[in-house]
Amino acid sequence: MNDGVKINRGLLGVYFERSGVSDIDGARGELSYRGYSIHDLAQNSTFEEVAYLLVYGELPTADELENFDAALKAAREIPEPVYDVIRLLKNGHPMDVLRTCVSALASLEPESAMAGEDAFIKSGLRLTSQVPVVIAAHEAIRNGREPVEPDRSMSHAANWLWMLKGERPSENAAKLADVDFVLHAEHGANASSFAARVTVGTEAAMHGAIVTALSTLAGPAHGGAAEDVMKMVREIGTPENAAAYVKSMRKARLPVTGFGHRVYKTEDPRARHMREGVRKLGREKGAPKWYEILQAVVQAMKPYARHGLNVNVDFYSGVIYQLHDIPEDLFVPIFAIGRMPGWVIQCVEQKRRNILIRPLTLYDGPEPRVYVPLKDR
Amino acid sequence: MNDGVKINRGLLGVYFERSGVSDIDGARGELSYRGYSIHDLAQNSTFEEVAYLLVYGELPTADELENFDAALKAAREIPEPVYDVIRLLKNGHPMDVLRTCVSALASLEPESAMAGEDAFIKSGLRLTSQVPVVIAAHEAIRNGREPVEPDRSMSHAANWLWMLKGERPSENAAKLADVDFVLHAEHGANASSFAARVTVGTEAAMHGAIVTALSTLAGPAHGGAAEDVMKMVREIGTPENAAAYVKSMRKARLPVTGFGHRVYKTEDPRARHMREGVRKLGREKGAPKWYEILQAVVQAMKPYARHGLNVNVDFYSGVIYQLHDIPEDLFVPIFAIGRMPGWVIQCVEQKRRNILIRPLTLYDGPEPRVYVPLKDR
Repeated sequence: MNDGVKINRGLLGVYFERSGVSDIDGARGELSYRGYSIHDLAQNSTFEEVAYLLVYGELPTADELENFDAALKAAREIPEPVYDVIRLLKNGHPMDVLRTCVSALASLEPESAMAGEDAFIKSGLRLTSQVPVVIAAHEAIRNGREPVEPDRSMSHAANWLWMLKGERPSENAAKLADVDFVLHAEHGANASSFAARVTVGTEAAMHGAIVTALSTLAGPAHGGAAEDVMKMVREIGTPENAAAYVKSMRKARLPVTGFGHRVYKTEDPRARHMREGVRKLGREKGAPKWYEILQAVVQAMKPYARHGLNVNVDFYSGVIYQLHDIPEDLFVPIFAIGRMPGWVIQCVEQKRRNILIRPLTLYDGPEPRVYVPLKDR
Repeated sequence: MNDGVKINRGLLGVYFERSGVSDIDGARGELSYRGYSIHDLAQNSTFEEVAYLLVYGELPTADELENFDAALKAAREIPEPVYDVIRLLKNGHPMDVLRTCVSALASLEPESAMAGEDAFIKSGLRLTSQVPVVIAAHEAIRNGREPVEPDRSMSHAANWLWMLKGERPSENAAKLADVDFVLHAEHGANASSFAARVTVGTEAAMHGAIVTALSTLAGPAHGGAAEDVMKMVREIGTPENAAAYVKSMRKARLPVTGFGHRVYKTEDPRARHMREGVRKLGREKGAPKWYEILQAVVQAMKPYARHGLNVNVDFYSGVIYQLHDIPEDLFVPIFAIGRMPGWVIQCVEQKRRNILIRPLTLYDGPEPRVYVPLKDR
């Protein structure tokens, strides 16, 4: 029975849709957004420009970028009831609180229920601006501080650090946060984007789709790696301990965090830009040790590269956040800030040629049986 | 280029997992939970018993059912901050408010973050009790009334109508609500359950998975049919108009709501139990017209049955809710009340033999291109 039915566990290798947004060549370790190499974008572009590129398909002209940036800046605010929600839930995990606030925004912003692609995109871009405001407000409120007002003279990345810390970030720190967001902005049908597409497949609204994406990103197997890497680095303590740590983990058949990726079978192309950032920021902050530990782990992991265990993007990001003294439970929310444009355009693509996404499970439960009344059990 | 890659749009016909919960034979129009025919369960069982059966795999003994029922009843309460959230968002759509409250509960209930299958199931069963409390509280608050306290002497279904209406439901009304919940309790890898599984695939928590399910159910193509059927019935107005209505819709190549299903190619086996309920409740409420209109639509649709356009479960449920004078924007939340046990066990199954669910999109965007600096655009 059931012979010949193929079960595609994890939907590994199954194509469910075409997408014109990002191209991932896992074997060669290449990633591009709309045809532009991630290396060019990381070195030359900004989060705002990349968000425009992802959502509208082309790099903006100076005028287009100015208008787009102005709209993003104008949307840097959340209605007062969202602050009330944050106060009610202030002791919750930041990802849960962020998800609750995005969900609440659906009830507070009229355009969230409007039909049509323009309103759908507008909802998504507004949320792109609001997500960092929510995270920073929660961080302030749970520490007994007043939230820092967004500064509309700053870039998306600089304003994020400003709201979080209450002080103007250094140029290098702002640039590094910007590159981090660019590198995380989009990554194909990863679990959170795919789940958001399933939600849009029922013709649900943008806020619901982003809520789904946040629920899914919150799982340790998706967004949790940066946090885990930081724990590992602390456990290792000094560069000299790295080799012994790797050896013991491999011997116990435990995974070394920050290595390996479902799609990349060679180095994650995003990793190199983060590596350089960690090195620089570590020197700036007078804490070069973290970088040295990371490099020692990479060295110790070299023999396993042929098993596909290469450095992924999360390997470096946790240490960057640590150097900024950002609490570990904000690492996944920061991933969400970066990923917003990717989620938005994936949802827009899904909506454009929509179809209900509804696969099948193969039944392997009990054979048909006769109902026995309660008194006879 | 890209030749030979198969795109499985909507994942139509793709099996992604085995499941021992429900068996759907779409060609023959059969549905069973854990081996028990939906017909036996609709006629002989209760929501509480079916919830136990779905989650634990066997019909409960009298003792097991008593303990299970006591736990469900004990969980009929929501913390005070959730009432505050409802007050802040009271003008929102009930599905959005429900989703926000479930999300908020993750921050207010300590066991939501506990590891292990027991805590995971417990979170899900607690939410099963809390979801109707949230919906009824919102309905009261948005109408300027005090929420009705849950009554722990009543069944899940009777207590729902009690909290909603503030009066003890008739035996027939409570039984019909119970059957409605039994029929909606589980339905394989439908979009909401599947999306919840994708969320659990990243090792996310139960609350997040249910939030994903709610976001996905909110889309009109999933949970919206009952609402649409009611609109159609109102538009038709009298049984005599049904044939002309169907003819005009078919001529305009527009779908007739409540007919056809992604999986069932013959009559949805759940429909017959709802049909009988509509007929009875219509007589009880002195409003037999709605049932007559529905039957006239079914008659007019007969010629299209061979195209797979048969009555589905949603065809009757909207009219039942209407006969109870329940506002249309509560129809999808009621679906959610019924579906809770199905979502919970699907998430548990996913967690038991977990794997990241991450399919692929085939890139069809621009070829590699050279980055042009902003000043040269």
